[in-house]
Formats: sequence, structure tokens, C-alpha cells
Amino acid sequence: MITCSAPGKIFLFGEHSVVYGKAAIACAIDKRVSATLVPCSSVKIKIAGQYKPVNPKKNPYVAGAIYEMNKIAELPGFCIDINSELPSGAGLGSSSAVTVATIKSLDVLADTKLSLKEIAEMSHKIETNVQGKASPTDTFVSTFGGSVKIPEKVHIDFFDAKIVIGNTGKFASTTNLVSDVYELMSKHPDSVNCIMDAMDRVSRDGEIEIQKKDYKKIGELMNINQGLLNSIGVSTVQLENLIWAARNSGAYGAKLTGAGGGGCMIALCDENNIQKVVNAIKKAGGDPFVCNTTKEGVRVDKNNVNPE
Amino acid sequence: MITCSAPGKIFLFGEHSVVYGKAAIACAIDKRVSATLVPCSSVKIKIAGQYKPVNPKKNPYVAGAIYEMNKIAELPGFCIDINSELPSGAGLGSSSAVTVATIKSLDVLADTKLSLKEIAEMSHKIETNVQGKASPTDTFVSTFGGSVKIPEKVHIDFFDAKIVIGNTGKFASTTNLVSDVYELMSKHPDSVNCIMDAMDRVSRDGEIEIQKKDYKKIGELMNINQGLLNSIGVSTVQLENLIWAARNSGAYGAKLTGAGGGGCMIALCDENNIQKVVNAIKKAGGDPFVCNTTKEGVRVDKNNVNPE
Repeated sequence: MITCSAPGKIFLFGEHSVVYGKAAIACAIDKRVSATLVPCSSVKIKIAGQYKPVNPKKNPYVAGAIYEMNKIAELPGFCIDINSELPSGAGLGSSSAVTVATIKSLDVLADTKLSLKEIAEMSHKIETNVQGKASPTDTFVSTFGGSVKIPEKVHIDFFDAKIVIGNTGKFASTTNLVSDVYELMSKHPDSVNCIMDAMDRVSRDGEIEIQKKDYKKIGELMNINQGLLNSIGVSTVQLENLIWAARNSGAYGAKLTGAGGGGCMIALCDENNIQKVVNAIKKAGGDPFVCNTTKEGVRVDKNNVNPE
Repeated sequence: MITCSAPGKIFLFGEHSVVYGKAAIACAIDKRVSATLVPCSSVKIKIAGQYKPVNPKKNPYVAGAIYEMNKIAELPGFCIDINSELPSGAGLGSSSAVTVATIKSLDVLADTKLSLKEIAEMSHKIETNVQGKASPTDTFVSTFGGSVKIPEKVHIDFFDAKIVIGNTGKFASTTNLVSDVYELMSKHPDSVNCIMDAMDRVSRDGEIEIQKKDYKKIGELMNINQGLLNSIGVSTVQLENLIWAARNSGAYGAKLTGAGGGGCMIALCDENNIQKVVNAIKKAGGDPFVCNTTKEGVRVDKNNVNPE
């Protein structure tokens, strides 16, 4: 049996503006997706307790990983079981985590010894094939873990934080949101460009405050970033309600994370106010859960096939 | 009997950034404050149906107007009755309208033939004396009416619009909000300066769309401006709820108006959706009322003392 897992991620700063080449900061979180392989005569995936053939339409990331790994190794038969601690389609990078965890498990199975860089690149290729266009951020952070500065894709000082995530439960298409922002930009180029510059500035200021570990100022910058996201039309009344509930319960700062239009918000907390923020988000109609940022990227959790 | 009245105002774009010398647009609305003078042996003001001496602490704007007008004319005795269609302390310029209407009524009474410019300047002086520091925008718009570009204080093409105003019923001190923004600016100068530039850009784009009478784009720019106001911390969850209720009921755009932190929001509407927006704001906990922008500034409504 082989089990590998990879983390989800949050955008601390700069989602959307990153599409326009501006600075952003993303962090891995300690909520993970795991891929477990057990020996099997053919290639199957466990869905609702039953092993079924891998379907590229229903399981595109797993199918993509198998397809790519088959190019570089002869894979034996296996059954794969995906388990996720992340809500899917909620802006927390669950599809990247599935892809990265699956590749790593197959890498262990086939003993191909892929580097982290190779895993990240392969995952990004798979995401791009499935989604048409995909940001390399999610796959990079899920592979390497830690706090990552975009577009450079380099680690910055680790941002060690308690985060309460609030899920609105509303799904929104990243592709549609990115194109809505593009349309707004086309209609009001001067104003929207100016806002993208402000987001860039906020991310850069954020990096400085992370270095200084000034959580209060990081929270203030998250709030500023949220207003800018609101200004380009990707917030919703549900997100605003969860965000204000968190702020009014003592969070350092709160903002949506990912594409918006639904999905999740994040609140930067400390030990003392986590429960209060959780309760407030619940009361405001959200589905809250607590996580920590993490340095850990993809990892092998169990390996009794090719022990190191 | 003499009755003079002066309009309230809304900020269409650029409140707060105007404090930092950026562009803004304010419009007079057809909700007015009137000052009625009737002959009287001494100087009194009607409060809750009874005539009482004018108290500079309780009636600072009326007292200020009397004080300033006494410098340039010998005023006979009169009783003054102030009637307002504007909620006070809600960012709609009610104190300016009181001041302007009172000065104009005294101007008619004393036959001093003040120019509009002189009325606006005197009103601003009185507001400054009362509040310590006051923007000349409110008194200027209340005196001259129309759509006014700040800081130039010149009329732009008249913005003829149906507006639904939603009052949160929460009072917030303009002075405190302006100083909160200043504090945020001191802590994060690069980011907040960049946001002020974006607000400037939005106001300038707004002026162009007003010229073109493109209500859809004006509404989009109002939404953008609201996000920027949210980013500098002057929105509240109550304001956001009224704003989103209006947007989701078909308003072209919606934003807070004035200092924020409570007070009022405005929604740009057309004939077809006014009632829907009014109902939505009510349902979201606000106190809605409908108004139009107006070209009319201060005016004489009744004058049988010194007929022209």
C-alpha cells in the first residue's frame, strides 16, 4: 500500500491581479488530499466504496496523472482511493492537491524518483489540459508547501498562522470570474488597471509585514485587499457577511480567497479568538473550519511497496 | 412670511479621496431643508411646536447664520422654523442645507442681495466654525445645485438620475472616519495612496460616462468606488447588505455616500426597478426613500416681505 498526500492552499494576497502579472502570496494549509494505491489486476478508482474504471470525464485529474505517468514508466495494475479534507471547487486548490498527490503516489509505485519541480510541472500540465488554462500557483504550492511569492514562485519567510476558513457553499466558476474581471477591465481600463496596481502594492506590503511577523498589519492589508476584490466585482453578499462576521469577532483581517463569486473566505486569527470567529461565521450562514498554514508540501504517508 | 429652501447632496464618486486632493463628483438632490421666517418681537426658533431662543449649542447652524448676517445687516426680530426632508448626520449634507436655507431667508429679510458665491462662502465659514474643519463641497452644492466636480468646484453636465437612498440608521462621526483613513494611510502609505489614485481615476472615468449618459457604466463605476471605500475601512456590514440588496434587485450600481461607517447608501436606478430596489433595501434592514438629482440650489419659496 502507498499513500501520498498534498496540501490545499489559500491566497493571502493578490488573487485575480496575479492574472495581470502582479504580485501575490499563496500559502499551503494543513488540510490535505491523499491518494492511496493498493495492488489490483487493472487500474481502478474507489468511488462511494466501489472500485470502478478511471473515467477521464468524471476523474480528470487522476486520469491525467495516470496518462502522464504512463509516458515515463510502465505502471502495474492498482486501485486508487482519493480522500480529501478540502471542499472542492471552493478556491482552496483541491484539484491541484488531487493531481499532485496522485502523481507522487504513482511516482513511488513506479519508482521514477521525480523531483518536486518535475511533479509541479507535470501537475500544472494536467490542470491546464483539464481546465483549458490554469495558474501554476496551486500546483506549485501543493507540491512545495510553505508561503510562496508569485509570479517569481519562490518561498518567502514562512507565514505561520491560524486561519479560520468559511465556506459559503456556493460554487463559482474560476474561468467565468476571471473573464468577468477581464470584461470590467476592458470597459474601464484606467480605473481597473489602477486597482490592479493597488493589489500589487498590497501584496508587496504584505510580504514586508510577514517578514516582520506583524499580524495586525497583515490583517489590515487582507482587509484592504478584500475591498479591492469587492471593487472588481468578485465578492458576494454571502462572502461579505462571513468576512464582516469574522472581523467583528476579533480576527486580524478577513478576505475571500481564490476566485470569489462564492467559495471560501479566510480569517487570520490568534489562539484566543478562533472559537469566536468560528461561531460568528457559522451564525452568518457559513461552514467554518480551522487550519494552520504549513511548510509541508507533497509527502509520502505510507509506502510498503518501494520503501526508501 | 419668507420661506427659502436648499437641497441635500450625494457623493456620486470620490468621498474620502477628495480629502487628499483627488477628483470627486457630488450632486444636489430634490430633498430639501426649508427655513421659514415670520415676524416676531425678538429672535426665536420653533422647536417641537414652541418658539424658543436660538441656542448656539443646540442650533449651531442657525445661530451661526444669524451671527454672520448680523455683521452685514440690521436684522429685525423674527421667528424661524426649520423643516427638513433629509435625515441628519447621515452624509446627505443636512447641516449645509440648514445653513444655506437660513442665510438665504435672512438675506431676503434684510434685503442684502447676497450672491450665490457669497452665500456658499458664508455657509462654509459657519460650518467650519461649528465643526472645526468642513469640506466646502456640501455648502457649494447646496447653494448652487446641479452636479459638481471637486476640487475645481465647477458644474459638469447635469447628471439626471433616479436615486434610491437607504439609511442604515447608524450615526457615524465624519471627523472620526476621516481620521481613521488618515491613520490607515500612515500605516500603509504605498497601498492606501495607490487606492486614492484609483478613486481619482474612477471619478474621472465617471465624469466621462456622465457626459455620455451611460448609466450602466456609471453604475459599474459606483460599484468599483464602493469596493475602494470598503478597502479603506469605511464600509460596514449594514451598508454592504443594503448595497448588495440594491444591486441584486437591478440597480445600475450602489455605494455608500458621504463618510460611511453607517449613514446612507445610494443606488442608481431607472423607473422600472425603483420599487424593487426600495423593497429590497427595506427587507435588508434599511430605511429607503426615493429622490432625483436636481439642478436647483438654494431658492426662495415664499416671500411676501420683500417681493422682487
